Amino acid sequence: METVLVSRAVEQHDLDSVPNRTRLEFTHAGTRLVLNLDLFNFGCDLREEERHYRHLSPPFCRLFHFAGAVSPGAEIIIGGAVHRLDTAGIYLLNAEHSFDVRYFAGSKLCYAHLRLADHTRSSVFHDAPGLLRIEQPVISAYLEHAWETGMPLAIQSAAAAAMSEFVAPHLERLRERSELFSRFAPVLAAIDRTPPARLRVSELADVMQMTPFALSKSFRRKIGMPLKEYLNTIYLDRARELLTCSGGTVEDVAVLLGHSDVHYFYHAFRRLTGLSPGEYRAERMNFGTKTDESPEIARI
Amino acid sequence: METVLVSRAVEQHDLDSVPNRTRLEFTHAGTRLVLNLDLFNFGCDLREEERHYRHLSPPFCRLFHFAGAVSPGAEIIIGGAVHRLDTAGIYLLNAEHSFDVRYFAGSKLCYAHLRLADHTRSSVFHDAPGLLRIEQPVISAYLEHAWETGMPLAIQSAAAAAMSEFVAPHLERLRERSELFSRFAPVLAAIDRTPPARLRVSELADVMQMTPFALSKSFRRKIGMPLKEYLNTIYLDRARELLTCSGGTVEDVAVLLGHSDVHYFYHAFRRLTGLSPGEYRAERMNFGTKTDESPEIARI
Repeated sequence: METVLVSRAVEQHDLDSVPNRTRLEFTHAGTRLVLNLDLFNFGCDLREEERHYRHLSPPFCRLFHFAGAVSPGAEIIIGGAVHRLDTAGIYLLNAEHSFDVRYFAGSKLCYAHLRLADHTRSSVFHDAPGLLRIEQPVISAYLEHAWETGMPLAIQSAAAAAMSEFVAPHLERLRERSELFSRFAPVLAAIDRTPPARLRVSELADVMQMTPFALSKSFRRKIGMPLKEYLNTIYLDRARELLTCSGGTVEDVAVLLGHSDVHYFYHAFRRLTGLSPGEYRAERMNFGTKTDESPEIARI
Repeated sequence: METVLVSRAVEQHDLDSVPNRTRLEFTHAGTRLVLNLDLFNFGCDLREEERHYRHLSPPFCRLFHFAGAVSPGAEIIIGGAVHRLDTAGIYLLNAEHSFDVRYFAGSKLCYAHLRLADHTRSSVFHDAPGLLRIEQPVISAYLEHAWETGMPLAIQSAAAAAMSEFVAPHLERLRERSELFSRFAPVLAAIDRTPPARLRVSELADVMQMTPFALSKSFRRKIGMPLKEYLNTIYLDRARELLTCSGGTVEDVAVLLGHSDVHYFYHAFRRLTGLSPGEYRAERMNFGTKTDESPEIARI
């Protein structure tokens, strides 16, 4: 029995092999909350010429801060509105919101591609607008310092600092969500140790010592969403992140998701998105403005 | 089998029920590192009168920062040397180093009691001096901001920010240690899910599919420390933290450690320290200067 546990632990490590993860556990109003901050990518760019990019329904959030007093920043069109991004603000560009961005010449951008999820794997900003802004000079200064060091550990701490400001207005909602999920703790634990393609309602029902029917009914009534749909969301979030953020082939991604055969991945992904994994990835790499000077943007 | 997993997960949660934990996972020079930052206690005190305290072999580290430009700070005697703590510095008072501290009247102190350990559960500062100092105005400003908010999430992020500076010179040593332990990954995973009083060499040998003798020999040769001694250290670190940081009774601590009977706790703790759990705790509460005005210091 011990050996099975170990083997699962290894899978879990493979599954969650994001380069940088910060897990924050704390108590809010008497309820224990867990936040996972995954940094897929980060960097600091000086944009010497004006550049324009279009990002279609990105699967992760972007943290943006323009460094220095004279940085001209950027203009962004998101949700039909035009916003000027200045150096005083720290910005969160929310996942799933398509946007156009125009970087002005001379802008120095500190950025990170990230996901901030609670222990139910839902993005903290799931219901938030496409663009969030905070203004906190102390954190701006710390972001610039950390990005200058280039050290992953420092950048993770600085990203966590910015995220703790963005998340503050959402803490009460997160607490309520955690309470709703409290009776499904064994399900969440099983989800944590199972690759998403291998999640089965029947096995989750086993850990709850319930029938699949009873679990599905209880979950839908309490959470307001069918369990199967919840599992599909977890699967799809992870698949899209891996397709856009990992350098692996579609076959590699299928293995990381827990598929025994890449054809199952094609089938499942197309059923959920209408696209093949390769089409999905190609669509996100197809920029007219793709340049070698900005490979980290052009790549996604 | 699934049910056993869930039951262990619950134990793990009880075992690690520290109020605030930040887990940082990142890659350093190609090696994946994990750091766990546990905050047992934190606060911000204005000391209106000069105060003197003696701390005997504290089981956790202290993060100290004196806020404001006019704060007179403190004087500390540690390892036979006298140091002045000023407002420009951020200080780490290392665990296990006894010290005397004199807070000058008018000092505003942001503090946290913490432990920073790698995935082998060893303190990052195990071999470091009793007093460490960094000077980084950007982080000082962020610490003061976070402590003013009083929000656990902000304070965790700020403590992680300070720790990422303190830990930078130790990263290469942590990487080497991680490499040394790499062949014992299943042992570390088993330790993570087992309350420390229930750790047995025979069960760890099972997860490695080795005999207890072969595991002990391999561990000692690779790590340079007997496995049994390593397990005792993990047990004792946790026992001492719980005795000094939790408000629970000695019986509560025994349960959290995984003892089936409090008498086993008395026996094991006395064998390892020469003191009973109650004597250990009482010794750390016995300050001549104990006052109600500084309960958080006087308590420990």
